[in-house]
Amino acid sequence: MTSLYRSAARFRAELRRFLRQSEDIARANGLTPRQHLLLLQIAGTDTGSTTVSDLVTRLQLTQSAVTELVQRAEEAGLVQRAQSPNDGRVVDLSLTPEGERRLAAVYASLGPERQQLRAIMEALEE
Amino acid sequence: MTSLYRSAARFRAELRRFLRQSEDIARANGLTPRQHLLLLQIAGTDTGSTTVSDLVTRLQLTQSAVTELVQRAEEAGLVQRAQSPNDGRVVDLSLTPEGERRLAAVYASLGPERQQLRAIMEALEE
Repeated sequence: MTSLYRSAARFRAELRRFLRQSEDIARANGLTPRQHLLLLQIAGTDTGSTTVSDLVTRLQLTQSAVTELVQRAEEAGLVQRAQSPNDGRVVDLSLTPEGERRLAAVYASLGPERQQLRAIMEALEE
Repeated sequence: MTSLYRSAARFRAELRRFLRQSEDIARANGLTPRQHLLLLQIAGTDTGSTTVSDLVTRLQLTQSAVTELVQRAEEAGLVQRAQSPNDGRVVDLSLTPEGERRLAAVYASLGPERQQLRAIMEALEE
């Protein structure tokens, strides 16, 4: 039994360590862990903007949780809304310069951690 | 900015999907997500047993949170305690047959998801 679970256990332990570190770094840059993921998901799209509906899938949160998260991020000056050029009924979300600055700071701090996590995952045997 | 964050955003979206799936499968097998990780961390050690102190590091939880988690898992018949053969003051934790059965069921269901996650991680560019 033991050898079967060894790599999965190591993977989960490292994953928790990575997520914990990521949350700590987000907070050190004035972001909640969810705000950090929100900014990353907006910035990581092909166009640099997205909609609430897209974010529901990407963040695995409910529509109302995403709506509240976006509203608070907007109030904090991290995210801005604009009417979609393609469909006037849709609101596009993008980062403000301050949102971009904080996301870049978290990303830079997390770099080495992410590399370490990737190395561990590549070693996952199954 | 966009291309820089694209793979990180995809990685986090897939990670959240994986963790959500893992939590759903744990619950479908009568385990809380934390109980699942507890059983995995006990079973994944070299000896198949471990101590509360070890689990504090592996689960990234406080000593009191681990103590409570272990106590509830013991009451649920998933985990058993024994005095360590090496040091009588230390309590070794191991899985009961029922704990082993449920962990194996979660592990079997999660398999394909984990492979998918690994493939995505290997594609992470940085």
